[in-house]
Amino acid sequence: MKQIRIALIGYGNVGKAFARMLIRKKNYIMETFGCEPVITAICTGSRGGILSAADPAGACGTAAACGIDTEHLSDDQFDRGLDAFAIIDSGQYDVMVELTPINIMTGMPATEHVRRALNLGKHVITANKGPIAWAYRELRDLAREKGVQFLYEATVMDGVPVYNLARETLMGCQITEVSGIFNATTNFILTEMEKGSSFEDAVAEGRRQGFVEADPSMDIDGWDAAAKLTALMNVLMDVHITPLDIDRTGISAITKAQIEEAAAQGKKIKLICRGVLTEGKDGGLTPVGSVKPTLVDQESLPAIMDATSSYVSVMTDLMGGVTVIEEPFEPEIDHTAYGVLSDVLRILANAHAR
Amino acid sequence: MKQIRIALIGYGNVGKAFARMLIRKKNYIMETFGCEPVITAICTGSRGGILSAADPAGACGTAAACGIDTEHLSDDQFDRGLDAFAIIDSGQYDVMVELTPINIMTGMPATEHVRRALNLGKHVITANKGPIAWAYRELRDLAREKGVQFLYEATVMDGVPVYNLARETLMGCQITEVSGIFNATTNFILTEMEKGSSFEDAVAEGRRQGFVEADPSMDIDGWDAAAKLTALMNVLMDVHITPLDIDRTGISAITKAQIEEAAAQGKKIKLICRGVLTEGKDGGLTPVGSVKPTLVDQESLPAIMDATSSYVSVMTDLMGGVTVIEEPFEPEIDHTAYGVLSDVLRILANAHAR
Repeated sequence: MKQIRIALIGYGNVGKAFARMLIRKKNYIMETFGCEPVITAICTGSRGGILSAADPAGACGTAAACGIDTEHLSDDQFDRGLDAFAIIDSGQYDVMVELTPINIMTGMPATEHVRRALNLGKHVITANKGPIAWAYRELRDLAREKGVQFLYEATVMDGVPVYNLARETLMGCQITEVSGIFNATTNFILTEMEKGSSFEDAVAEGRRQGFVEADPSMDIDGWDAAAKLTALMNVLMDVHITPLDIDRTGISAITKAQIEEAAAQGKKIKLICRGVLTEGKDGGLTPVGSVKPTLVDQESLPAIMDATSSYVSVMTDLMGGVTVIEEPFEPEIDHTAYGVLSDVLRILANAHAR
Repeated sequence: MKQIRIALIGYGNVGKAFARMLIRKKNYIMETFGCEPVITAICTGSRGGILSAADPAGACGTAAACGIDTEHLSDDQFDRGLDAFAIIDSGQYDVMVELTPINIMTGMPATEHVRRALNLGKHVITANKGPIAWAYRELRDLAREKGVQFLYEATVMDGVPVYNLARETLMGCQITEVSGIFNATTNFILTEMEKGSSFEDAVAEGRRQGFVEADPSMDIDGWDAAAKLTALMNVLMDVHITPLDIDRTGISAITKAQIEEAAAQGKKIKLICRGVLTEGKDGGLTPVGSVKPTLVDQESLPAIMDATSSYVSVMTDLMGGVTVIEEPFEPEIDHTAYGVLSDVLRILANAHAR
């Protein structure tokens, strides 16, 4: 049976969840696409890397690549000297999956990882929104030039198919506006404050429940939401902006008193993202994006999004408004892993169609 | 340039809107797929039919099929003796688009139109949910056998890509539940009653605004919603049921007093559709579908759906809950036409990929 060899650059919670999901869906994939998925490389942040199948015939006695047994990893399998670039440059994979921690302010080193793998003619999947927020157009064009696929469904709203919705299912529609609630941490904090918590207590409760990171400033200051909005605008509206172009206000200045005042008016405060194309004086279209705390009616879509739900709305020329909502029922990490898996399936489906 | 020849079986508001949209997007289609879409047959309910390009070389002097000029149709172009079956059997088209009025209780004659075109090896698009609610499995298998495509995106929620969402973008997920508000007429009537109208006044107002048909019984008694639920369950859950299998209660017995009582409890009454697979005594899975007036919280998704909006939620094994909302901004007829157009684009995209 044919194989698809996968290199995981970054192996935190998402990488581990993806490896488990791949095992769970292996038979489905083999039956559907006639292709066996194998993980042939793993790069961790602190333990070094594993590169399997450098010599497939020698390593497992067959011509097939022997995948890494992700269920039974031991420290002595890792090579401390094997870093992301060494693994990427080895070329011992068909698909590079970029899962390193994001640096929202630069998109690095993820963007360079993606660039190098594409240059080697490899398919690339990223769950890291940095490359899409900072260098989408360049990477898209590079992938086209090399005849490979560059997919990134997990970068916004986990595995909820926001990009594919536009690309695969709203074909022929022009998207004129994108909006929504994209950041779970701030939504959780605002929801706790509605229940009566102070900002500080809400952050502490979020930490306890795992919704707020040790350093929550990227979420609270709106950078995470701005990066996601940038990613969506770059892809769905074919523009070329960075998170620095977003008019961004976080929620750190929101007080309990403001939330109570809003409630007295039948409203809530939500961190709303919105991107539009506005007509300039010269008739050209300029992308304008904003992330800011916004008063919304209690009986409106943003208001009923509970702590962990999120949504993306697009306005289209032919279909009016279409909205997708994600309501996780398991920790969000699994849903991000599904986003990566769905991109693997897309690569297989496209290979199948050819 | 290659051509794709389209036969429109049924030429009411949707057919006319589709023809206009095809002209508007013609350049996009030719640039994207290198293929010119032409309408080569039209069958009306009362004026007869037009069959163009019976002899392409003779009719317009080239080997290409000459499309019908839908912007300038005159009565003398129609042949009263040319009915749907005559046009379908002519085979002078690549895609048959079924747009005849639905008979929810039988799915006929639409199902027979679809069957005949598929048997001739033609692609089929239906905006008529009858064939999907009554004979989906047979028609799907027939299309596979003949190596042609059978698409039906416009049958539920106009052109909002509910089927494609599941098929193209939630690949590998198993759908365990489907629910939502699928019928605009009943949603409009209930919304008017919340504002204080009686049932009769709400129906009259809906007629005035064009949301309620002359004979609204199929909507009010829940048959339309039941047919849509059946269609969704047949496709998304791969079951084989008909609208008669749905546990169905309409809204004709809902009183103003009940709606006021619900409001006093912070609730609304909505016509909710829901389909699940339940485990039977023998361990097998049985599809169970219901359409019934249901109490929902005022700050919930079904409650905030205004008169003309609708939504479909699916519960999946890998991605939790995913919901799609349609918020029309033009009369819904254009959105149905877009659903048909999106299916045409899908046929072209698939042909392109091969």
